[in-house]
Amino acid sequence: MDEFEIERLDEATLDAPVLVEGLPGVGHVGKLAAEHLLEEFDATLVARLYSEHFPPQVTVEDGRSQLACLEFHAVPETDMLVLTGDHQAQDTVGHYRLTDRILDVAAEHGVERVFALGGVPTGELIEEYGVIAAASDDGLRDELDPLVEFREDEPAGGIVGVSGLLLGLGERRDLPAACLMGETSGYLVDPKSARAVLEVLQTILDFDVGYDSLEERAEEMEEVVKKIQEMEQGQAPSDDDLRYIG
Amino acid sequence: MDEFEIERLDEATLDAPVLVEGLPGVGHVGKLAAEHLLEEFDATLVARLYSEHFPPQVTVEDGRSQLACLEFHAVPETDMLVLTGDHQAQDTVGHYRLTDRILDVAAEHGVERVFALGGVPTGELIEEYGVIAAASDDGLRDELDPLVEFREDEPAGGIVGVSGLLLGLGERRDLPAACLMGETSGYLVDPKSARAVLEVLQTILDFDVGYDSLEERAEEMEEVVKKIQEMEQGQAPSDDDLRYIG
Amino acid sequence: MDEFEIERLDEATLDAPVLVEGLPGVGHVGKLAAEHLLEEFDATLVARLYSEHFPPQVTVEDGRSQLACLEFHAVPETDMLVLTGDHQAQDTVGHYRLTDRILDVAAEHGVERVFALGGVPTGELIEEYGVIAAASDDGLRDELDPLVEFREDEPAGGIVGVSGLLLGLGERRDLPAACLMGETSGYLVDPKSARAVLEVLQTILDFDVGYDSLEERAEEMEEVVKKIQEMEQGQAPSDDDLRYIG
Amino acid sequence: MDEFEIERLDEATLDAPVLVEGLPGVGHVGKLAAEHLLEEFDATLVARLYSEHFPPQVTVEDGRSQLACLEFHAVPETDMLVLTGDHQAQDTVGHYRLTDRILDVAAEHGVERVFALGGVPTGELIEEYGVIAAASDDGLRDELDPLVEFREDEPAGGIVGVSGLLLGLGERRDLPAACLMGETSGYLVDPKSARAVLEVLQTILDFDVGYDSLEERAEEMEEVVKKIQEMEQGQAPSDDDLRYIG
Repeated sequence: MDEFEIERLDEATLDAPVLVEGLPGVGHVGKLAAEHLLEEFDATLVARLYSEHFPPQVTVEDGRSQLACLEFHAVPETDMLVLTGDHQAQDTVGHYRLTDRILDVAAEHGVERVFALGGVPTGELIEEYGVIAAASDDGLRDELDPLVEFREDEPAGGIVGVSGLLLGLGERRDLPAACLMGETSGYLVDPKSARAVLEVLQTILDFDVGYDSLEERAEEMEEVVKKIQEMEQGQAPSDDDLRYIG
Repeated sequence: MDEFEIERLDEATLDAPVLVEGLPGVGHVGKLAAEHLLEEFDATLVARLYSEHFPPQVTVEDGRSQLACLEFHAVPETDMLVLTGDHQAQDTVGHYRLTDRILDVAAEHGVERVFALGGVPTGELIEEYGVIAAASDDGLRDELDPLVEFREDEPAGGIVGVSGLLLGLGERRDLPAACLMGETSGYLVDPKSARAVLEVLQTILDFDVGYDSLEERAEEMEEVVKKIQEMEQGQAPSDDDLRYIG
Repeated sequence: MDEFEIERLDEATLDAPVLVEGLPGVGHVGKLAAEHLLEEFDATLVARLYSEHFPPQVTVEDGRSQLACLEFHAVPETDMLVLTGDHQAQDTVGHYRLTDRILDVAAEHGVERVFALGGVPTGELIEEYGVIAAASDDGLRDELDPLVEFREDEPAGGIVGVSGLLLGLGERRDLPAACLMGETSGYLVDPKSARAVLEVLQTILDFDVGYDSLEERAEEMEEVVKKIQEMEQGQAPSDDDLRYIG
Repeated sequence: MDEFEIERLDEATLDAPVLVEGLPGVGHVGKLAAEHLLEEFDATLVARLYSEHFPPQVTVEDGRSQLACLEFHAVPETDMLVLTGDHQAQDTVGHYRLTDRILDVAAEHGVERVFALGGVPTGELIEEYGVIAAASDDGLRDELDPLVEFREDEPAGGIVGVSGLLLGLGERRDLPAACLMGETSGYLVDPKSARAVLEVLQTILDFDVGYDSLEERAEEMEEVVKKIQEMEQGQAPSDDDLRYIG
């Protein structure tokens, strides 16, 4: 296996598509959001990306192994190329090179803009879900301005990992990229934050999507939050409750 | 020394052989199982694999040094190529490249299928020893089905290291591979788990092997478990007892 | 992106310039000192240096992203090429290669000498601010002798990171280099130490610079020190106070 | 700078020389022993070895910087090439490649055998100082047999770092290599252990050397040991005392 391997599985015709990235991160917000799009729309798995920079492992589902990889799905209804997966690169130079390969695959599919989805940790449970943003060029920044918050000091420490590098390396390729980050406590997998991010995305890209399944997960999460609060007063959580600890 | 060096020590004629891997891992189950095969059958050391990705060290036995390596033994009686050793690669890209070199050596010997042996930690001492499995293709999965358990959520976190990559990279070479994992506490070197795994392997590959030496080690382990329980009530273990802590 | 990318943004004419380095380190002394020079003099951003050895991230300012990089500013008034940034390389070989690229950019601009600015930790709050030094050749050492302290056992452990390698690799290129290190507690971002270092530099390089803004920051820092001492007697610090913890 | 740079500083004529290695390790035994040889005999610095695998730093002595390196001294009186330094490689592959470069320099000087000097930790303060050994070939093992101890289970965990790899990679080049390890507590820099190792070496290589300076350091160390014992009964050690903590 080479440093990177791209397994091309299917064709898809997308019109001036957008790359939507949802890899694991704070609160798994980006991951939940991207996976929700794949549940709600018809999606075709078009490519898998393998790398010796990923953790050396296979995941197992129903007895079948799958080598660590990222997946690209084409969603024709919304002209999206959606990137999901369970891993980030395990070493510094690997992050840069991985993101360059992701942008190569995006270029092959004619991607014209990139949206990286993620979370920004507040450090505490919240009621209102703002979405902050960053963009790699002024044009995209202006387009986002009415829909998101640009905060002077956030995200503190910048944006780390593939999401940040999609902006940094996208800019070097004249490919406009933005990162949408939903506020989240950082302690839980957060479906409400994922919804907040998707609501901004659907306005920018002008598509409709339902939120029933995310809403269900949000209600489950509220139950867990209640139990955490009860736990802090003495009662132990069940395994089901623990499923939401991100 | 190059990134990998293969030292070819002897020839062996194997018929449609199987690669059996037993490197260090959970409970040392795979290592014990593979070493048991080498004790019970006539085996010829056919190759050593060195790498700058291994820990920078030599082991010492009776005053003679041996550079860190993996060993391939040919077992003609059962048409196996058995892989043993004391090390996994020390860095991420090293794991992927090491496993590719292992599969190259296997290909040189005409290997047609791969069995990676290991343990899956239960987190507690157990009485019954189940064996769970994963396979890189459907054919091999179906063949294993009556003999093992395929559990939906296990192994949690997938299969890490050479064992997992033998499945992931084997699949890329159209080389069917399976991982057999014996349940084990994870706290002790576990000869009972090694036996459970070998019993599945001997059914799949249709060979006979005795278990007396593993049985002796199992009895010693039970003594240690008893002493741990006594220890938790106040008595200190001897050095002999501690030999079984994996 | 290659291992290193140099983005050339502007031209500048410098006469027999000096490279002045102020990357993050102990007490942020070098960083404060270099940034102070850029505030006090007209400076032109001439180049950015990107690398896959930097943390995989973008910083965000007012909604615009900037890929991790180092910056070179030309300061014609003092014939300096000033190097600033927020990152050191993240791996060992990266440090050596990064410093070689920095020296390449310096050579492009005709740099004849190098001054690395930093701090040496005393481990306690201090009143007097000495400056110790090290040089890569005897000529430069003799020139510094009346202005700094050369202490037999300091800095203990040598000089680590880009500052140290500018001396080590500068020597290999026959480029005289010195490191000026202001004493500092190591617990705080230290504007007084930065001033002490700049006062030595201005004598060596014969330039004038005001210190009002550094003085303001020094007064703020003294307030923080007072509050830390009060805190040790029971009162909690505000967020403003915490701004000075380096 | 390349991955490795060899700076050749002087010539020396050695007859069938031996490489004697004393890099930092357990109790600094090897380092003390090698440095003692350089104090007692006329020695010429013949080469420095630099590497991007070393810590990215310079050491500073009397205001002059020196880039991290290993040093080779020729000692004609005993036909030795003595290797000293303050660093081991900082990453796994670096260790292997560094040791190969060391053996290249040794080969340039016609080295016929290698002696790596080090310590083996006992975990407690000791009265008698045994020397255990390992060799890369049987001939050298037999030669050492009357002078050292070959213990079945020691050193536990093998020999790590350059010392171990000199045996492992020396064997691959048909260059006989042995490691002599003096017993030491592991808590202190140990001149007594260094002396024990040198006494074995002088018998093997048939040379004479005085031990006065090592004896002085040994007496200082005994004072420290006494103070540690007193400390455990309540009295604090001075900085001088702490000099011996390795």
